[in-house]
Amino acid sequence: MQSRYFVINDRPQGMPERGLFELHTIELPSLKDGEVRVRNTWLSVDPYMRGRMNGIKTYVEPFELNAPLEGGAIGEVIESRNSRFPEGSKVLHNAGWRDVAQLTGEALDPLPKLEVPEQAYLGVLGMPGMTAWTGLNLIAEMREGDNVLVSAASGAVGSLVVQLAKAKGGTVVGIAGSQEKLDWLESHGIKAISYRDKNAEQLSADLKQACPEGFDVYFENVGDICLEAALTNLRLGARIAICGLIARYNDETPGHGPSNLDMVLIQRAHIQGFIVLDHWSQYPRFLEEVGPQVANGEIDYEETIEDGLERMPDAFLKLFEGSNRGKMLVRL
Amino acid sequence: MQSRYFVINDRPQGMPERGLFELHTIELPSLKDGEVRVRNTWLSVDPYMRGRMNGIKTYVEPFELNAPLEGGAIGEVIESRNSRFPEGSKVLHNAGWRDVAQLTGEALDPLPKLEVPEQAYLGVLGMPGMTAWTGLNLIAEMREGDNVLVSAASGAVGSLVVQLAKAKGGTVVGIAGSQEKLDWLESHGIKAISYRDKNAEQLSADLKQACPEGFDVYFENVGDICLEAALTNLRLGARIAICGLIARYNDETPGHGPSNLDMVLIQRAHIQGFIVLDHWSQYPRFLEEVGPQVANGEIDYEETIEDGLERMPDAFLKLFEGSNRGKMLVRL
Repeated sequence: MQSRYFVINDRPQGMPERGLFELHTIELPSLKDGEVRVRNTWLSVDPYMRGRMNGIKTYVEPFELNAPLEGGAIGEVIESRNSRFPEGSKVLHNAGWRDVAQLTGEALDPLPKLEVPEQAYLGVLGMPGMTAWTGLNLIAEMREGDNVLVSAASGAVGSLVVQLAKAKGGTVVGIAGSQEKLDWLESHGIKAISYRDKNAEQLSADLKQACPEGFDVYFENVGDICLEAALTNLRLGARIAICGLIARYNDETPGHGPSNLDMVLIQRAHIQGFIVLDHWSQYPRFLEEVGPQVANGEIDYEETIEDGLERMPDAFLKLFEGSNRGKMLVRL
Repeated sequence: MQSRYFVINDRPQGMPERGLFELHTIELPSLKDGEVRVRNTWLSVDPYMRGRMNGIKTYVEPFELNAPLEGGAIGEVIESRNSRFPEGSKVLHNAGWRDVAQLTGEALDPLPKLEVPEQAYLGVLGMPGMTAWTGLNLIAEMREGDNVLVSAASGAVGSLVVQLAKAKGGTVVGIAGSQEKLDWLESHGIKAISYRDKNAEQLSADLKQACPEGFDVYFENVGDICLEAALTNLRLGARIAICGLIARYNDETPGHGPSNLDMVLIQRAHIQGFIVLDHWSQYPRFLEEVGPQVANGEIDYEETIEDGLERMPDAFLKLFEGSNRGKMLVRL
């Protein structure tokens, strides 16, 4: 049996070109004891993958050149020499960017059995959802009634942050780009502010109008003017969870940081960067809390879906154009 | 009896001019019940006073124009209608920038009775010392063996931070300017790095050489290239205590922040701004711990002294020229 998989053939500078990605085919070796063969049904593309394309170790190893790329994936076991995962098992694993994966049982998790579409475990109930819940609760330590600001508020992570915050918050404000995204936020009771065509000062003034008393929590996905505007609107003792800084992931030369870091001093603010993998032991707690809310429709989530393995690079690149709403996925 | 005191006659833009400060004289009213008259012997000038000269409330009220300026002071009661503070009492209070202060007992603290020169309570055993101890222990939560980086490392705050850190640390590195300051640091076993004529990249390379494994704690007094270079040299889980950002206190337009805030994410760093007044309930604990070490000479401290009330503005302005070593004081 063959497996088709994507590689990158170079370390990208700036925004990756489509030509960076090559689709390769290999003949899979026969299964060893303990191994399974998985036909992937859903593949995830996530902003953090951009960091792995650089040749530098950060919090994960960089992708190897010309080796299969990795990423979250869901699939079905089609051949098994592992009794834990018989043929027909639905599994979650990290051998994405390919149609068929051959793996040992240690690399697999069984798909949880909530009444949700299976791809939810790559989004609202997977890594992005867990990231939202972790950042808001464990890092920013959101308290009942806190005013919460979220950047990239309609994205895979942000869209869950705003809903979790709204359920126990004071004023919840989301920053997003397109009118469609702003409408989605408003329809969920979130005050929506566009960052488009604004400088930090203008964005800051709009945030002040949306929440004059300022924010206790800022959930940061973007950086750049969003961070600067947020710093100006902190309340005393504010907590900032830095989840991502997507504005700069493709910059060739690093841009400047916010000019108002003195607000951290004035408001005795906490800033903490976090990586969700460090907190993965809490995943069962997250699933127990958020899973039923997703299953019964209390929590809404959006997906942007591309069809076919060939579309993986395009889906990935769209993450940086701000064109997806909610979780970006590829369906095989 | 007359009191001579300094006022500011305008809100300064950028570095204050000497002409901003005016020396006024008033005839003091006769003492009311509960009041005392204090002849000040030592006056403090501190970087945070620059912030109070702007018309904007930050963590303290701004100075009023044409009203007596305020600041730490030590003096002796020369006339008393308060039984807690009889004539001859040595007191600590905040009615500085003047020769004679008339105050109620609530505004006074008795001077602690350690075997140290009285002006130590404005420096190593006063607000700056308490700031050093608080930032290192309560904010950055320094642990035994941590590698510690300190900016403005020979200043009133920094010079205590490096010594406290050295006593329980791994590698302790101090950033300072002049050769004299670097020598003082080296003589106390601190690796001293100059920031002079360097950009962030060069400073960062020097820090890496001084402590290749990176820093667990960064005690920030300066901002600017010091912060950027520090961020590049963080270890996993590093804690940054932001005590001050003196590099920018006189900027008319805010400068840019560090270009490498992604290091906060990559290293899961904490950044926390703090104001020592919030932690003042811990002052007795600080005094109990650090006081004896100062009294017995285990902890060294430096003073830069100007003589005469008239020199107050000059002493204050020198803080921003980087010309003082240790605590800057005016002796009356």
